[in-house]
Amino acid sequence: MSPRLFLPTLLIALIPCAQSADSAAPAPYRSAGDIIEAAPPTAWRLPDPARLLYMELPQGRVVIELAPQFAPEHVANIIKLAQQHFWDGTSIYRAQDNFVVQFGDADADDPGKAKSLGDAKAHLPAEFHRPAAGLNFAALPDSDGWAPQVGFVDGFPAARDPKTGTVWPVHCYGTVGAARGNDADSSTGAELYVAIGQSPRQLDDNLTVVGKVLVGMELLATIRRGPAPSGIYENPAERTPIRSVRLASDVPKEQRTRLIVLRTDTDTFRDATAARRHRIDDFYKRSSGHIDICNVPVAVEVAE
Amino acid sequence: MSPRLFLPTLLIALIPCAQSADSAAPAPYRSAGDIIEAAPPTAWRLPDPARLLYMELPQGRVVIELAPQFAPEHVANIIKLAQQHFWDGTSIYRAQDNFVVQFGDADADDPGKAKSLGDAKAHLPAEFHRPAAGLNFAALPDSDGWAPQVGFVDGFPAARDPKTGTVWPVHCYGTVGAARGNDADSSTGAELYVAIGQSPRQLDDNLTVVGKVLVGMELLATIRRGPAPSGIYENPAERTPIRSVRLASDVPKEQRTRLIVLRTDTDTFRDATAARRHRIDDFYKRSSGHIDICNVPVAVEVAE
Repeated sequence: MSPRLFLPTLLIALIPCAQSADSAAPAPYRSAGDIIEAAPPTAWRLPDPARLLYMELPQGRVVIELAPQFAPEHVANIIKLAQQHFWDGTSIYRAQDNFVVQFGDADADDPGKAKSLGDAKAHLPAEFHRPAAGLNFAALPDSDGWAPQVGFVDGFPAARDPKTGTVWPVHCYGTVGAARGNDADSSTGAELYVAIGQSPRQLDDNLTVVGKVLVGMELLATIRRGPAPSGIYENPAERTPIRSVRLASDVPKEQRTRLIVLRTDTDTFRDATAARRHRIDDFYKRSSGHIDICNVPVAVEVAE
Repeated sequence: MSPRLFLPTLLIALIPCAQSADSAAPAPYRSAGDIIEAAPPTAWRLPDPARLLYMELPQGRVVIELAPQFAPEHVANIIKLAQQHFWDGTSIYRAQDNFVVQFGDADADDPGKAKSLGDAKAHLPAEFHRPAAGLNFAALPDSDGWAPQVGFVDGFPAARDPKTGTVWPVHCYGTVGAARGNDADSSTGAELYVAIGQSPRQLDDNLTVVGKVLVGMELLATIRRGPAPSGIYENPAERTPIRSVRLASDVPKEQRTRLIVLRTDTDTFRDATAARRHRIDDFYKRSSGHIDICNVPVAVEVAE
């Protein structure tokens, strides 16, 4: 076999179905890819275009799904900002390796130069967590060091504390959150960060998570890093310009990204995750029997 | 405070020392940065230049520390390959988002075009794990979903199973491993990968880890991704050329990268990790009381 292709999804050989049709025979192992490939149409969802942001960069489009179920006030503000074209002409002004990129108004801290938030609110409550009631929390059986329970809510990785009855989104690769100062309620949604490395779980329940990137992480993750420690560029010319940020529903239909997302409350998702937890194929010699919440991909398919 | 600077290391205010010198007063919180800043010289080590690789890319130098304590056969082969200038003129031919970049001979699979390994061995045993005996394993108190215990061995993140008495390196951001085919013993060290996203812990004890990147991850992590699913470039022009890979000890002293690495078996490292586990500062509103092995940085300081 190819010594350079160690990626199991490429190397998986279907286990030969030597078993008879005897109903006592165990079902052959199916990889996560096989399971998702065979998913019924009902296992997929079409994200609501009124909850999707398109960020247009010179490199291409980044699609962010907003999470009003976790941060209704921030999401309402973000939608208002997008509809006012707040981010047009702003930039990604920070890229810290193995942590985050951050975008918005690079002059937000300078009262003389900061862009007006227009009709958006200048002050919002912190939305770090919320009551579990009313959420469809699909728990993983896997232990987690950071929280009592982890799972998915409508495609978003999340944690739950049965004692307090609260749920909060967890920070994984692609999580979008609202930058703030020291005060818990100092974020407005105008300045946003995206996790680009190892999941920064220490931020969980400490910042307001507003959504996650569905498409285009490879554009954000490859942005040239700024200087240590914070990754904020010293020279404005190094920033990545943002052409525009629009709500998908405000973009003509023919210009929208056509995508579907695997539902995280389905048998398909549960079975695909189980297949990743217990890998049985020609490549893996040992299966961990475990998967971390931030190692569970939520499949997104983009039409050509 | 600045809404755009949410990085705690920038925002930490020293807790005012209102306490008297009374010995009963609790010690004021010191951040990981404060603790490392105050570390005695003995808390630092100079890596052995005979165990460091310099990979020269158009973007700059990547410094890799080899781990002969985990993979003696692979490391010996890699040193031989470097001394034969095997990688000069090869490339980074794969970049899969949120997974790995992979480098070496892009034609390794083509018997007609593959580069000769010269005096290096064409076959090595798998070196996935080893006996715990003889290793200085500094265990973390934190739980881990993937392994019974985790900690550090000579700066390398690792796992230990007390039942089997074995230790294996774990895959974190920056871990360097030997690509292989389906056979456990099909790696030679000529084709190497580096983890560039969320820690791919499912690879633990399934591949031979040969070292970790000490300097230059921001160069590898920003390499333009290849096409899904594997990230292998279709067009050779998209590959990142490798000018050379050399053992630091084979490079003139004045051209070496001068760096020091925090020892992971020191009070400084233990205290800095504890300060990250239990964050008490003006930024964090809630401390998790936990840290994941792959969220624990091992400080590297590079002289100008």
